[in-house]
Amino acid sequence: MTAIEREELMRGTKEGAPHTSKRIQDEALKLFFERGFKSTTMREIALACGLTPGALYNHFSSKEELLGSMLVEIHREMESRLGAALQVATSDPKEQLRSFAHAHALMHTVYIIEARVGNREIGSVNGDVGAEVVRIRQWATTTLRDILELGRADGDFDVPNVAAVANLILTMGMAIAKWYRTGGELTREEMADLHADMVMRMVSKQSGGRQ
Amino acid sequence: MTAIEREELMRGTKEGAPHTSKRIQDEALKLFFERGFKSTTMREIALACGLTPGALYNHFSSKEELLGSMLVEIHREMESRLGAALQVATSDPKEQLRSFAHAHALMHTVYIIEARVGNREIGSVNGDVGAEVVRIRQWATTTLRDILELGRADGDFDVPNVAAVANLILTMGMAIAKWYRTGGELTREEMADLHADMVMRMVSKQSGGRQ
Repeated sequence: MTAIEREELMRGTKEGAPHTSKRIQDEALKLFFERGFKSTTMREIALACGLTPGALYNHFSSKEELLGSMLVEIHREMESRLGAALQVATSDPKEQLRSFAHAHALMHTVYIIEARVGNREIGSVNGDVGAEVVRIRQWATTTLRDILELGRADGDFDVPNVAAVANLILTMGMAIAKWYRTGGELTREEMADLHADMVMRMVSKQSGGRQ
Repeated sequence: MTAIEREELMRGTKEGAPHTSKRIQDEALKLFFERGFKSTTMREIALACGLTPGALYNHFSSKEELLGSMLVEIHREMESRLGAALQVATSDPKEQLRSFAHAHALMHTVYIIEARVGNREIGSVNGDVGAEVVRIRQWATTTLRDILELGRADGDFDVPNVAAVANLILTMGMAIAKWYRTGGELTREEMADLHADMVMRMVSKQSGGRQ
């Protein structure tokens, strides 16, 4: 038994070792990002954490559980951030949309690796965990659609197709994690503002005929 | 030697068997899409094509070469379509942008699987083939940036940050392959029109202050 394994045992069960679980998630995230989820083995994750496979399995019973735990956490973070953004905005659909779009983009400048792994590997989480991730994604989509519908009904927005425009907006925001780099020309706030500006333009009433 | 292998031999060299090479690409594309590039083996591709691994290697010397051949083809198709779209438009930046955005979106409603595999696995092509793919992607990005710059200089467009807005536009178009489904509410033409409309709005001069 290695010193690290002994430490693991001393620290006790899964529930009793949040710090180690977090460290495992961090190392696994890096490996999933670099090599892909399917090409990464539990043995490699254990090695990266300085654990034996046995000690790793004490925290996560499978690679799927490990991925699922990370995806649920990042989606709950998104739900929390988007929910807070809607809370601080007034009920005006324009403010709701700007606040939603800004928070969505900002999140994708902060959790770049999590977003890229999550969006690439989402097909690999199933069961209750997969259902929770799907629920949160559907909540975000429905929330955005509702804002677009409301703004259209109020006469504030011109949205030709609510479902399709919601998809265009969400995927444009998600993709920020693919190309945005911190330390570049735009700060995170500026990036989120730019995205929100573009979203507001997308739904704005057009002065002339077909733009 | 199986009948199929004999047929392969009769048909001759790599260059002499475009039909078989195309069939291999089609089967490999399906497998790469379903299982991911890294998780798919040459043996599985051979099996899906009804070939022995030996016969498969007569057409493609490696899995990387097979992926690379597909990615180069789909990127050349994109270059050709975008180039043609710019040819039919006048030199007016508004027409250039609409035509570019329409062709880009339409392509992503037609080559859905190719786009999804290509955008996911682009990191796995290297060498001359990788360089050719990168060249075409950079050409598309530069072309779009040039149109945005031109429209801004002409006073037609209001683009706060050309490089970032070009990325937002391109990723929004690429993501159409992720969510658009044929036979749904929108035809391919309608989808391409909607995307182009949204892009025109994104760069349109705003009447009031900050939108």
